[in-house]
Amino acid sequence: MNNANATTTRGKVTLLSAGPGDLDLLTIRAARALATADILLVDDLANADIVTLAPNARVIRVGKRGGCKSTPQAFIQRLMQRYARKGLHVVRAKGGDALLFGRAGEEIAALRGAGIAVEIVNGVSSGFAAAAGLGISLTHRDHCQGVTFVTAHMQDHSQPDWRALASTGMTLAIYMGMSRIASIAVSLLEALPANTPAAVVQHAGSPDEKRLVTTLGRLSSDAGAAGLGSPAVIFVGGAIGEAAELAARRGDGLAHAA
Amino acid sequence: MNNANATTTRGKVTLLSAGPGDLDLLTIRAARALATADILLVDDLANADIVTLAPNARVIRVGKRGGCKSTPQAFIQRLMQRYARKGLHVVRAKGGDALLFGRAGEEIAALRGAGIAVEIVNGVSSGFAAAAGLGISLTHRDHCQGVTFVTAHMQDHSQPDWRALASTGMTLAIYMGMSRIASIAVSLLEALPANTPAAVVQHAGSPDEKRLVTTLGRLSSDAGAAGLGSPAVIFVGGAIGEAAELAARRGDGLAHAA
Repeated sequence: MNNANATTTRGKVTLLSAGPGDLDLLTIRAARALATADILLVDDLANADIVTLAPNARVIRVGKRGGCKSTPQAFIQRLMQRYARKGLHVVRAKGGDALLFGRAGEEIAALRGAGIAVEIVNGVSSGFAAAAGLGISLTHRDHCQGVTFVTAHMQDHSQPDWRALASTGMTLAIYMGMSRIASIAVSLLEALPANTPAAVVQHAGSPDEKRLVTTLGRLSSDAGAAGLGSPAVIFVGGAIGEAAELAARRGDGLAHAA
Repeated sequence: MNNANATTTRGKVTLLSAGPGDLDLLTIRAARALATADILLVDDLANADIVTLAPNARVIRVGKRGGCKSTPQAFIQRLMQRYARKGLHVVRAKGGDALLFGRAGEEIAALRGAGIAVEIVNGVSSGFAAAAGLGISLTHRDHCQGVTFVTAHMQDHSQPDWRALASTGMTLAIYMGMSRIASIAVSLLEALPANTPAAVVQHAGSPDEKRLVTTLGRLSSDAGAAGLGSPAVIFVGGAIGEAAELAARRGDGLAHAA
């Protein structure tokens, strides 16, 4: 089954972006791909109810969370190749957009190397859903020229250059950062003032969504006090100030975990 | 109609992300919102066929392209408020994701200030669709820790700090940069080597999609030779190297405009 003599078969793998939470955040294209799936590999970060959209599929759960390799990547690769070689339509569903922090690059390269057709279906990354939850734009032409989506969870346990990132003036959307939120804040405070707007959105785009709007100086202590944890997106930057203004105007508790 | 005495009505405005091209890249939530739209304001960058998903809506075209203010922002704001105050469901469709470079922040603030309910529906930003077209991930854990989405089109005609952006090691996804691609490349070359992988995807996610995979040193001349123009996403960074490897392996012309 793991034949090195790669040949193209009629089977294929769809790398499918399952979005950040509610199933109606899936694209129409994603729903159509799921409807024709024979095999559905589901990530921990995808909505578990996604299986209802793939009525004909055998479902295989391949969760990995927070670096615990409960299902080794090599095993997932072998599964995809095995079923695609049988001529089946394999759908690999990943939370958010598959092309951001999803190891999609490795999976695409391995599948192509094995001569297997790969289709990519985009979706909504959790950073976008988190901004929608806060009721803000990721960019604001008065405040910044863009947004950086960055992961705090590195394979080699190194850290991104937070100071360089802070100096660009981009909105920062930090994924997988809750376990080291204190050290991230300390690093960013070397380049940004303590009153820089900051926010945390846990379970973005789902009914369990929790939001915190604060400042960089209070980010870690406020997130701790609010009991926020993974999975969450941390925002830092001027554009996030809109959320604080909104919370103050509404007086609706958005300024604390809501 | 433009009454300063703002009151909340049963009408509402949905800021709707129309995605980058094909209609099946809309989310299911977006399709549902369109189905109940009474008024549909459509952007130049949204797929013109989106009106077919809003059979009951009066369609108003409010295009703005490349800084030409064919429909002034203030007029769009007044239109949205006027119809929402009549109790209607106004859908404002924007290309890509409404929360990235879409002036959504200003529109949200104005609507809220007027006491009008605002709903935000996320979608696929063109940078994600462009990466899917290239068959690559926006991040690769061997190459980078994240991606920066940045616009080259500033209100005050200033430029982002390209050198600072280049020094972060993030993949750069540059929107609205085609009219100044030569000067952007020159700026980035102050911090990055000429053989840094680069790519251009025009009309990402649509049947008219065109792709170019090259290097930073050749970016401007190759894009010019290939006749690529707006709207397009320019990519620069190590993760884009996957696309070059793929093009070389497939020998399928992806290395030139395809």
